Amino acid sequence: MFADPDLTCDGFLGGRLRIWQPKSGYRAAMDPVLLAAACPATEGANVLELGCGAGTASLCLAARLPGVSVTGLELQPGYADLARRNAAENRVAFKVIEGDLARLPADLRGSAFDHVIANPPYYPASGGTPARDGGRERAMREETPLALWLEVALRRLRPGGWLTMIQSADRLADMLAVKGAGSFAILPIAPRAGRDASRVILRARKGGRAPLRILAPFILHEGGHHARDGDSFTPAAQSILRHGSRLEF
Amino acid sequence: MFADPDLTCDGFLGGRLRIWQPKSGYRAAMDPVLLAAACPATEGANVLELGCGAGTASLCLAARLPGVSVTGLELQPGYADLARRNAAENRVAFKVIEGDLARLPADLRGSAFDHVIANPPYYPASGGTPARDGGRERAMREETPLALWLEVALRRLRPGGWLTMIQSADRLADMLAVKGAGSFAILPIAPRAGRDASRVILRARKGGRAPLRILAPFILHEGGHHARDGDSFTPAAQSILRHGSRLEF
Repeated sequence: MFADPDLTCDGFLGGRLRIWQPKSGYRAAMDPVLLAAACPATEGANVLELGCGAGTASLCLAARLPGVSVTGLELQPGYADLARRNAAENRVAFKVIEGDLARLPADLRGSAFDHVIANPPYYPASGGTPARDGGRERAMREETPLALWLEVALRRLRPGGWLTMIQSADRLADMLAVKGAGSFAILPIAPRAGRDASRVILRARKGGRAPLRILAPFILHEGGHHARDGDSFTPAAQSILRHGSRLEF
Repeated sequence: MFADPDLTCDGFLGGRLRIWQPKSGYRAAMDPVLLAAACPATEGANVLELGCGAGTASLCLAARLPGVSVTGLELQPGYADLARRNAAENRVAFKVIEGDLARLPADLRGSAFDHVIANPPYYPASGGTPARDGGRERAMREETPLALWLEVALRRLRPGGWLTMIQSADRLADMLAVKGAGSFAILPIAPRAGRDASRVILRARKGGRAPLRILAPFILHEGGHHARDGDSFTPAAQSILRHGSRLEF
């Protein structure tokens, strides 16, 4: 559990959403907002978020599409509680289930979704310096292998349903190894034009057979180098981060 | 075998290379030139090209790096003969071996290379309308599975050696499934800025462990739409196609 003094309340989508987050744990920035923007859900769809943390991605999606039904699975009780609080304060009917995707709760095992979204941890379990905070550690580091995230996501999709995942760009090969999916669309996310991608959004369809596409990169910042935090977003990035637009694939 | 009336002699690299090609068979255009430009070989390296066709990629590489040793494997006797003729007329010591990569000739089975390059057929064996010309059919269509091209390439590399391959962008997942390689660098090739990639160049290192990189796309043409064949190349594309520059990764 988090006590209020350990939390900050941050604005997303130009202040439309207010999200409580732990000061020193995993803190959502752009990635869950981009993930929500890239999910091709339409009104009436039911969407499952694996590892929803404090709920930023699902709440961003519900802000764009008030008619979607959003369910989140979260391993850590403190984050699951925050997600429920954030849902209530933003008046979103977000169903948050506490549980481990390696041992899926029974009420999820029986459900099929139109969409699964996920922003799994970016760093493999071994190597590197562990984060001092246990919650941050779990959110950042891959205790559950990425292959299992993909497998569980595919199992929870209805035939023809869509998986949308954001990951560190260097995990692309692991993501494309997912079984039972096709119609891959790969959107590289680059900090600036001409740079390597830092993140990648993968969209895949359960049972899909359309040819894989590599899209033009989505560029976050204008200009050739870093000026100051938070400024210099491209118009396309501003439209998503400040106005909650859809990221067209 | 091809008779001269069935051939054209085409200039590459701004006319530095003259390449005989069948009028109605598989005809090299930009892809083998980009492949050669993307190979990180240095002077003195030994390079194997799998499926060398009339030799365009290897001869482009030798034009940039006169000190490399180039060997080509080609299944079709007519193309192997053309490759030898093109090598002789362009004064390149290009060793062309006729054979099938599914049953590698003995003198290749005993060799290890610093680099392997390949521009395998883009279309899977099944489906689509077969090309009328048998040679074009073999060069365009995948009678040998892409996985085998990758496996044979990896086996022929020395530890730490580099594979460079150009393919249709929609085959990226198949390419990344290669076993025994890492340090992937993915260069999407797009016809114009903002468009999906049409081709992809994959560079991989045998036994490599560096993180996968997704590079900014290489853009072929200026402007938003097609004006006229052959014109409107970007300066970066011109530098490679007309002047034989290296494609920096």
